[in-house]
Parts: sequence; structure tokens; C-alpha cells
Amino acid sequence: MKYLNKIVECVPNFSEGRDKAKMEQIIDCFRGVDEVNLLDYSNDVNHNRMVITAVGSPEAMQKAVVNAIGVAVREIDLNQHRGEHPRMGSADVVPFIPIRNMTMEETVLLAKKVAAEVSKAYDLPIYLYEKAASAPHRENLADVRKGQFEGLAEKMQDPHWKPDFGPSEPHPTAGATILGARNFLIAWNVNLNTDNVDIAKTIARKIRFSNGGFPCVKALGINLADKGQVQVSMNLTDFTQTSMQQVFDCIREEAASRGVSIDCSEVIGMLPLEALANTTIHYLQLKDFNLNRILENRLLE
Amino acid sequence: MKYLNKIVECVPNFSEGRDKAKMEQIIDCFRGVDEVNLLDYSNDVNHNRMVITAVGSPEAMQKAVVNAIGVAVREIDLNQHRGEHPRMGSADVVPFIPIRNMTMEETVLLAKKVAAEVSKAYDLPIYLYEKAASAPHRENLADVRKGQFEGLAEKMQDPHWKPDFGPSEPHPTAGATILGARNFLIAWNVNLNTDNVDIAKTIARKIRFSNGGFPCVKALGINLADKGQVQVSMNLTDFTQTSMQQVFDCIREEAASRGVSIDCSEVIGMLPLEALANTTIHYLQLKDFNLNRILENRLLE
Repeated sequence: MKYLNKIVECVPNFSEGRDKAKMEQIIDCFRGVDEVNLLDYSNDVNHNRMVITAVGSPEAMQKAVVNAIGVAVREIDLNQHRGEHPRMGSADVVPFIPIRNMTMEETVLLAKKVAAEVSKAYDLPIYLYEKAASAPHRENLADVRKGQFEGLAEKMQDPHWKPDFGPSEPHPTAGATILGARNFLIAWNVNLNTDNVDIAKTIARKIRFSNGGFPCVKALGINLADKGQVQVSMNLTDFTQTSMQQVFDCIREEAASRGVSIDCSEVIGMLPLEALANTTIHYLQLKDFNLNRILENRLLE
Repeated sequence: MKYLNKIVECVPNFSEGRDKAKMEQIIDCFRGVDEVNLLDYSNDVNHNRMVITAVGSPEAMQKAVVNAIGVAVREIDLNQHRGEHPRMGSADVVPFIPIRNMTMEETVLLAKKVAAEVSKAYDLPIYLYEKAASAPHRENLADVRKGQFEGLAEKMQDPHWKPDFGPSEPHPTAGATILGARNFLIAWNVNLNTDNVDIAKTIARKIRFSNGGFPCVKALGINLADKGQVQVSMNLTDFTQTSMQQVFDCIREEAASRGVSIDCSEVIGMLPLEALANTTIHYLQLKDFNLNRILENRLLE
């Protein structure tokens, strides 16, 4: 049985969410490619943006991503781009995520290889971010993207914001691309049986790291008007630091202390097997359990 | 990427747990075989018995099992066999379990194909049991095996116990083999923080189906003298009928009502991904979640 030893995920964001023909050209770079599995793609017309999710071998993923950035640079003109979502490049943000048998160091190296290749091939400035960042002030995506496409020429004059690869001026139509490596991010929402959005906002403040809560947890309280409910909307940026069950139990307690119960929770996108296993291990108090005990995990050894 | 479409598990039990050379000959029928993955093997000297766990394609598994039964028939003489575990054949019990993209009907068919082949090749009587049974009174393994090797010649005289395949008299040294198909069985124990074995026995009676408890749950209360604890030792014979979380929550409540807490639980052997996912879905109140949302489950599509 053939087995992909190293598996990486890539979730590239492109600044095109309206022109179907252009989107299809980009998607085609991942579709039907050997050793690449296109898991998902979705566009948002208001954002004028498309997000692709793919997994595969590092070598095959490198080729696919280089091709896709090439299509974006050629087809998307940011001078014409209007949308609600901030953006700096035609291929805007390209994170790589280690999934199996890959270290973060190897993933950073892959991001840098892609950065070197696309900067040369397309004369495109590249910023490295998150785990691939060349300096602490470049780790946070929002900081790197600040000023967006329109402010890019000026930003690049600042020595603090010289691109990591490629020319020191924006590509005339494609701006600059932000490339990097990060941990798997769990997008996860918990819905509460109340229409009082203050309760969701208070709980979000309590749990998120920026207000002194759990490490690697981002959270917002939002209103779900159509459901008559409110939601704690979260990103867990490293579930090995803070687990789903820790957060869930905390939300349940905080809600209960305000007389509110949890209706349900929902995972957006994919969940790693380890996060699932950790939750079951916690609630069933399982000892000596590891991923090798999961039958399906051993079918293709 | 090559992908095994249909995957079956086989957990054959052989009446040899002491002679390493003979055991190795049997294990070799599964080891290094293309499209078969030997997950586990373990022998018990007191039981004088060995259990193998393997998964693979139905075709490859059929060949491996036919070979292994052949070795057992040739090498193990039940006239010389002494051990604590009841047994009727050199290859005693051979269950097949559908794992992926296989129905129970297909699994029963596989068991019958193996039965036809080994009965002819080795002149061996075969009883079909569980989902493959030819009559309701043959479903239960304990009923089929009753009388064991020593009582087999007499049992076969009874028209109710004519073998399903092969001759109507025992193989002189290998007895008869009991072959069948069943659901995946979860072997799972919950340890309680008390040394009062009556509490474990009472809870076991409460949860097991034979005393009016949960469907597809078998349970015993036993003493763990070395730990100063007691244990509810269980088999869940169909976790889609009764889930781990139902049983766990019930044990916790029953124990708590007697002032006792759960120390931990332990899974013996393998756990199917679906059982793990169901537990997480339950405790995190996840909606719209299915196995396709698990990243690793989609790596080899």
C-alpha cells in the first residue's frame, strides 16, 4: 500500500470571489493532481475572496501552490479589486500547516522554498509570517497586511517592512503575497440558548488569551439573529496548548452561572484526529490510549 | 494513491499458547502479506491459546486465514491440549468483522467462502455462528462450543448440531472450527475508587443486557486486588446500539449514588474511529459533524 510519509496542508486565500472562470483556473492547480487532495474551496462574493483547503506531499503541494500563485498574479488585478475583506496581494495569504510526520521546522522550510520560487518566477515581493516570520513584528498577519494593497508602496519604504523575498516594490497588479507556516487552526463555535449577546461577549472575553484567558484561544461574542441565539465564535490556534474540552467546560460553567445553557457547538472545516481523541480521552477518563489504538488509523500502515 | 476499498478485520483464536514455534508458523500466515496488516497477536500460557488481530482486503484475508487454519489443523493436537479456556478446535473461533465499505452481508459471505474452502481442504467440520449462523440456536458462541472437543463426537450425532460445512464427525486432532461474522466489539473496562467488589457487580448487573440493561452490553464486576480497586469489565458488541458515553454516564451516576468515583477507564485492543467521534460529538454537543470532517480520514481519498 502506498503511504504518504509526510503530509502538509495548505489553505491559500486568493483575492477573487466573483469571477467563476478565474476561480476555476486557480482551483484547477490543486484538482486531480497526484499526491494532492483538494478538500474544500469556498468563495465569498462580499469579501471578493476564495479560500482553498488542500493536503498532500510537500513536493506535490509546492508545485501546486507555485502554479496557483502564478495564475493569481496573472489573472487578478488588485487595482480593480473591491471587497470587504482586507488584502495585500492577488494571492493574499498562503499558510502551510504540518499534518503528519512533519515538524514545524520542515514546514517553515517549505514556505521559504515556495517564497524563493514564486518571488523569482513572478517578480513578486513576499512577506513571511507566523512561524516563518523573520522578525517578531512580522508574526501577526494583521500587522503584516496593515495598509493593504493601496498602502504597500509606502510601507515597503520603511526598512522594518522590506519584503523577505523578491523586489522592494509592489507587483503593479498583484501587490505582495504573505506566506508562512502555522499550527492547525480549529474554527469552532458554541451556541447559547439566549438572545442576550452581552453574555456571549462576556464569555468570549473571559476565555480569549488577549484578555488573560486560555493560551492560543481567540474568541468573539456574536448575535445569531435568525436563531434567537448568541454564539461564542472561536479559533483554537494550538489545540495541544488549550484543548476543546477545557474551553467547552469553561463556557458551560460561565453560561450556567448566568442561567444559560449550551444549545450545540459546530466545527467549521476540518478537525484533526488528535483533537477528537483528546476530547474522548478526557471525558471517558481513558488511560494509556493513543492514536495507534484507533483502528482506521492503522489500516494503511 | 492506492486505497483498499473494502476492509475486513479477522480475530482468529487458536488453541496454542505455549509452543512458540507453532505460534510463529500461524502468525507468519498474516505477517508481511500484501494487503494484510497484522495489528496484534497475544498468547496466554494458562489459557494455552493465541489471539491474532489483522485487517486487510477480503481476498487477501481469505487466503491468509485459510493458510492459518491449515497450519493449526496440522500442528495442534487437541487430544494433548490442556488449558483453562474452553475450546472445540485447533483453530477454535474465527470471526470476521466489517471495517470499511463492507456490509454485514458481504462479511457473512466471506465467512461462508472460508468455511467452504477449509472444510474441503482439511476435511474439517465447520459451525457458523453469530451473524453467519444457520439457525438462532447457533448464534451464541458459548452454545456452539458447549461440550468442547471432548464432547464433540456425541454432539454431532444430534441433528440440531450437524456442522454447516464438512464431515459430520470431528477431525481426529483438530476437532471443529467455529466461523462467523460479527460487529466490531469494544473491550472496555471502568475502574472504580473502591475495594468493594459488590459495587462493581451491582453496576454490572444494572448495565448488562442479560439483566435488562443496555442492548449489546455484556458486563462483569471484578476485583483488582493489586490496585485496591474494582472494575466493571465490559464488551460492547454493537456501539451503534449502545454508545460508550451512555454506559459511562450510567456507571458514573450509579457509582456516585454509592459514594464512589471513577478512577479511569481503559480500552483493550482497538477502537473504531466512529466510536471515538460519537463520544466527542456527544460531550461537545457537536452538530453536523461526520467522519469526513476528520482531517486524517481524508488524507488517502
